[in-house]
Amino acid sequence: MNEYEAQFAPYREQYLPPLEAWMQEQMNLFTATPELQAMLTYHMGWTGPGAGPRARGKRIRPFLLLLVNQAVGGPWEHAIPAAAAVEFVHNFSLLHDDIQDHSPTRRGRPTVWARWGIEQAINAGDALFALAFRALDALRAHHPADVVLDVQRALTDACLALTQGQHLDLAYEARTDLTEADYWPMIRGKTAALLRAAAYMGARLGHPDPEAAAVYARFGEALGLAFQIWDDYLGIWGDPAMTGKSVASDLVARKNTLPVLYGLAHPESAFARRWRAGAIREDEAAALAQALAETGAQTFTQAQAQRWTEEALRALSQAPARDPDARAALQALAHWLLRRAY
Amino acid sequence: MNEYEAQFAPYREQYLPPLEAWMQEQMNLFTATPELQAMLTYHMGWTGPGAGPRARGKRIRPFLLLLVNQAVGGPWEHAIPAAAAVEFVHNFSLLHDDIQDHSPTRRGRPTVWARWGIEQAINAGDALFALAFRALDALRAHHPADVVLDVQRALTDACLALTQGQHLDLAYEARTDLTEADYWPMIRGKTAALLRAAAYMGARLGHPDPEAAAVYARFGEALGLAFQIWDDYLGIWGDPAMTGKSVASDLVARKNTLPVLYGLAHPESAFARRWRAGAIREDEAAALAQALAETGAQTFTQAQAQRWTEEALRALSQAPARDPDARAALQALAHWLLRRAY
Repeated sequence: MNEYEAQFAPYREQYLPPLEAWMQEQMNLFTATPELQAMLTYHMGWTGPGAGPRARGKRIRPFLLLLVNQAVGGPWEHAIPAAAAVEFVHNFSLLHDDIQDHSPTRRGRPTVWARWGIEQAINAGDALFALAFRALDALRAHHPADVVLDVQRALTDACLALTQGQHLDLAYEARTDLTEADYWPMIRGKTAALLRAAAYMGARLGHPDPEAAAVYARFGEALGLAFQIWDDYLGIWGDPAMTGKSVASDLVARKNTLPVLYGLAHPESAFARRWRAGAIREDEAAALAQALAETGAQTFTQAQAQRWTEEALRALSQAPARDPDARAALQALAHWLLRRAY
Repeated sequence: MNEYEAQFAPYREQYLPPLEAWMQEQMNLFTATPELQAMLTYHMGWTGPGAGPRARGKRIRPFLLLLVNQAVGGPWEHAIPAAAAVEFVHNFSLLHDDIQDHSPTRRGRPTVWARWGIEQAINAGDALFALAFRALDALRAHHPADVVLDVQRALTDACLALTQGQHLDLAYEARTDLTEADYWPMIRGKTAALLRAAAYMGARLGHPDPEAAAVYARFGEALGLAFQIWDDYLGIWGDPAMTGKSVASDLVARKNTLPVLYGLAHPESAFARRWRAGAIREDEAAALAQALAETGAQTFTQAQAQRWTEEALRALSQAPARDPDARAALQALAHWLLRRAY
């Protein structure tokens, strides 16, 4: 654990157990259909072979929401249903994404479609989507109705953006003329929109001024861009021992990530020529990652992640906070996201 | 047009054009991704080959919502976003259902997955789902926030029920031991829940007393059950010239409908023996429909549809109404649903 992680870890340890418990409790809405319930609890990492913290993912989005909420005044306990909703939306999108990408495994376990078939997996994703909006309803116990509706609107807008980003990602698979300009609308939709919504929702539920939430939304969006760009970096130059994926796995999967689009803008480079020639084998991935770095793509990607992290920190410095320790933890989270190895 | 249809048709003619216009306007949220927008407007029946009233379906759910709203006091114009939301949810479920059932056509046109592929079709369904909740946000212009949240909760609960009903429907495909008791939870989720929500939402938006909405919810649920049971009837004994489907198409598709489960409860009947023997060809479907009728399934199905229609009319007679003509039109709608030929 580095210095940054040490700074926000106590908040995570405080938030995550009650968050997990609350999310698990929502699964009782599916007791009439135990097999569907089993798909959902498996996908969330709570049941089945390989269940446990690793199967659950980082829970970054709900953590961000609760930490922002505490920074503006909290109490974070009353924002848990919103945090759960954001995590349910994230997991719904992963569940459908795994079908769309034909991915047999996620976080080291078979995906829901691989275990229960595509038909049931589509439906299980839909159920998680519905559950997200059901979770928001619980906010009514502690928040005014118009605040709940603002929060709901933010989540809905993020879902619309998510489907637009996903549409582009799928449409890009068939294209060979992509440039860096095509990258930004895709990740704004696929990644940044939900982190933006998480930060907005946390602030809106803890601070009486909607303007405060708007500043946190900018923070969340910039953080989301930095997060995704760094994810792109790790997918090519990350340490397999840390990421849990194979060497340069995003190259083998032919993902249209930022470094790849940068490399393709140098059409005569060794990287671009090899990429255009077709399927990439695992045993040549390391050499290709090196060739890509030689186009300047590695330095460029680092600089872009750095740029958006700074953008996030700038927004954060302008954002009102009543709990300076929690705000310092948000800063540490932004620094850590840029230095993380997984 | 029979006497019943004549009674509610003027309301349909009044509501449907502004409803269609409002729904179409929502598609502007997708101008940044024109291909995704094209999938949605095609599926809704507005664009592409074969666009037109037939491709749009009956719009029963939004019509029910608006007519209930007018019956309790309206104004129905202010309930249009809720009607749109219900229709978007219905269409999202059809879009995913077509993938799950591997159906190449719907309402005489290629399905979205058949035109754009499974991956994009899953995503287009997700986009329609998100759009439904986005539509509800527009209710805030004319309704108190807590009423909007009640309406939103009703739609969310219907979506949870929908995914549970769909789960059962898919799970039943592999089963050979189904009885009539398995039928009811499936159609309560798949069909009745959304009609229930539509009637509830219409009432909640037009009447100050939440109790009134609860009575309309009972009306909508009973109507939904009658509607589905009659759909089952038409799928086997309907006139192909009216339904637009082949003779006894639900038998060829091996759907676990109410008449089939009734027939299977007579294991030694000619119907049950043939059903158990495997795939049914189109050229034997008519004879099998006749054999099923001989088990008493046809009379039983008619009686069940009748029973739930009476249940609906009973609830309606107890429901408060400020516009007696609109309430009479609701009665006519219930009678028509039970006598319709398509």
